[in-house]
Amino acid sequence: MKQKNANYDSGCPIAFALSVFGDQWSLLIIRDMAVKGVHTYGELLNGWEGISTNILAQRLKHLEETGLVTKRRDPENWRSFVYELTQKGRDLAPVIAEIVLWSGKYNTAEHAMMGTVEKVQADRKSFEVKIRNGDLP
Amino acid sequence: MKQKNANYDSGCPIAFALSVFGDQWSLLIIRDMAVKGVHTYGELLNGWEGISTNILAQRLKHLEETGLVTKRRDPENWRSFVYELTQKGRDLAPVIAEIVLWSGKYNTAEHAMMGTVEKVQADRKSFEVKIRNGDLP
Repeated sequence: MKQKNANYDSGCPIAFALSVFGDQWSLLIIRDMAVKGVHTYGELLNGWEGISTNILAQRLKHLEETGLVTKRRDPENWRSFVYELTQKGRDLAPVIAEIVLWSGKYNTAEHAMMGTVEKVQADRKSFEVKIRNGDLP
Repeated sequence: MKQKNANYDSGCPIAFALSVFGDQWSLLIIRDMAVKGVHTYGELLNGWEGISTNILAQRLKHLEETGLVTKRRDPENWRSFVYELTQKGRDLAPVIAEIVLWSGKYNTAEHAMMGTVEKVQADRKSFEVKIRNGDLP
């Protein structure tokens, strides 16, 4: 069954944001760059959640088109590329922080990763500032 | 082309949150309840972004199963139902606030709705408290 896409053009700020990063994968890609410090296609492909190569390529293209990610040649390996968050992408830091806090409260799974949750609980400001500056939080 | 679903079971707090509300539609449904004060199936169906009835039914079911939404008989019309956010759902208030602020910064569309953006910019705390209390912000 083909699913109808949302008419994100409603002008609503939530709908606008979802048109940029509101699918299953985009925010995980942004997380990999912002929090895990991942910058190559290969590293993104080997993320925790098992993204497929066609979806990764499609999402990266969309994130580039919407100005959240830039792509440039790797100066150390001219055949490959480096992906980086733009300021617009790094400005999602407070959204990421709030999502992490919410999950810390409600994810009761035994294998829930609590490291980042505890980091944000202890010093949310510094977590955000580091992402905004392009450092690893 | 069938798209592979993310293995949300990684334990990462971002992945956990996306497993609950990280699709195109769920956060718009949550927005309708939290910010627009919408509580019936018909009202949700007539939202700004044009959701179809099968997707709305599917997403509401998922939001119920994950504990963000409750469904009960409408005391004023026994044949219909009222949908409401639980505390877990209302606790997304800060996530919503940060998304609204980010979009306010980056949505340059002429028809961008700025009312909520200005409300959050002026008094984010009160916006969040109202959602958390189940009032309209």
